[in-house]
Amino acid sequence: MMPSLALEQANTIASAAIAKGRELGLKPLCVAVVDAGGHLVAVQRETGASNLRPQIAMAKATGALGLGVSSRKIGEMAAERPTFIAALAALADAEIIPAAGGVILCIEGQKVGAVGVTGDTSDNDEICALAGAASAGVETAG
Amino acid sequence: MMPSLALEQANTIASAAIAKGRELGLKPLCVAVVDAGGHLVAVQRETGASNLRPQIAMAKATGALGLGVSSRKIGEMAAERPTFIAALAALADAEIIPAAGGVILCIEGQKVGAVGVTGDTSDNDEICALAGAASAGVETAG
Amino acid sequence: MMPSLALEQANTIASAAIAKGRELGLKPLCVAVVDAGGHLVAVQRETGASNLRPQIAMAKATGALGLGVSSRKIGEMAAERPTFIAALAALADAEIIPAAGGVILCIEGQKVGAVGVTGDTSDNDEICALAGAASAGVETAG
Amino acid sequence: MMPSLALEQANTIASAAIAKGRELGLKPLCVAVVDAGGHLVAVQRETGASNLRPQIAMAKATGALGLGVSSRKIGEMAAERPTFIAALAALADAEIIPAAGGVILCIEGQKVGAVGVTGDTSDNDEICALAGAASAGVETAG
Repeated sequence: MMPSLALEQANTIASAAIAKGRELGLKPLCVAVVDAGGHLVAVQRETGASNLRPQIAMAKATGALGLGVSSRKIGEMAAERPTFIAALAALADAEIIPAAGGVILCIEGQKVGAVGVTGDTSDNDEICALAGAASAGVETAG
Repeated sequence: MMPSLALEQANTIASAAIAKGRELGLKPLCVAVVDAGGHLVAVQRETGASNLRPQIAMAKATGALGLGVSSRKIGEMAAERPTFIAALAALADAEIIPAAGGVILCIEGQKVGAVGVTGDTSDNDEICALAGAASAGVETAG
Repeated sequence: MMPSLALEQANTIASAAIAKGRELGLKPLCVAVVDAGGHLVAVQRETGASNLRPQIAMAKATGALGLGVSSRKIGEMAAERPTFIAALAALADAEIIPAAGGVILCIEGQKVGAVGVTGDTSDNDEICALAGAASAGVETAG
Repeated sequence: MMPSLALEQANTIASAAIAKGRELGLKPLCVAVVDAGGHLVAVQRETGASNLRPQIAMAKATGALGLGVSSRKIGEMAAERPTFIAALAALADAEIIPAAGGVILCIEGQKVGAVGVTGDTSDNDEICALAGAASAGVETAG
């Protein structure tokens, strides 16, 4: 059977990512976990995380799935080829954020979704995304 | 200090709404909890709940806040004045679902957000929304 | 010289419409005043008026200008020909609300804009729209 | 009780921002004041301010709340990471203008909304936004 991401795992990823942020003393975070189709499974947004954070977290996650690489890698592509990424981001329904914090989630080597974190620096956001996935026993790729 | 909805409360509302659905043997549910401005605080979507459920759950919640009444009441308005509600739903940025399952959340009599539930019949969705709010000790209105 | 709506007049219309609502003990109101091109000149939204009220007030006003009749008349058209009004409302950038409360503003017999009011019943909304215009010495049509 | 922005304060902010523009001999201005959720409380647009000014003023305000920093800071982010801000601005429902003139409003240290001003240079727009907030006795942040 092909593995998939259970709601309980998504909740764990979100809670653990936020707990990591608290442990590190980061700014208020928002975490979005999506399935392999890019559709939301879980969102958690801390008090004080600004209004647009849910969409940014989602776009880090769906962008990673959209291009098949982490949002950090998309950020590197944006530095090299800004017009290419700008054009991608302008495609209908293409939600892409070219900055670290969005990673692809895998179970048994298969893509089951992605997690996006935003609120602090993108490097710190990614640390929390990875910590969240690790807490749920889910591998990451991208 | 004026009350606001904490992430922990939003998580409890979502988890308890889904637990109510399991207790009643309902179809897979999706729950969205938003703050008073209509911005996401928490989402939980069960495995098997279809792709568009997060947007429907959000629109039940934000529609209730948008008009200041429950999505059940918006459904009643839609039965009486279908073109009025269709026109409202067509406004830019107006996210409205005219069917029960979206209720306004209050603490100490003040609006702090809304919860929207979707996946089963709208009557059952609303039962779960109310159960979720009750579990978190949050009042409902609309 | 063709007359136009000054900001001071728009502010007076909005303030006087809201004052009328307070005098009548109505629910919290939102008022939008637009120029002849349908672009905002003034908005005022009372505390407690729900989140979507600004868009509704604007759409009552721009809809009136869009079709050249009051939003009350558009409501009557919607009762007679619901699919026609639904199709109109779905046009790109067509913001129309088929319910009383939006009236065209005229100076020296020429259209200079429109005002839309929302928050209470549409009949009461229209009373406030008309009172606002009268306070500013601006005629109404439609 | 947690503070919130009253309509009277929003009107004062808008009027005072425009008065500052007149005092400085600036081009015609448009001012938008939104609540903490990014929903309009007041708009004022001077005669001669072009058609799109209301949306620009709103986007300076909602963008500041969306990211939790002033629109001047968003402008600086755009200079450093243009593709990142372009991607943010392209997200569905993300209304962001990366130029000074949008500042977050606080009462007793808590975010209660934002004001956006447009019409002249962005530096002058910001001067008027700050003058408007000061006239209403409202602090600014971001």
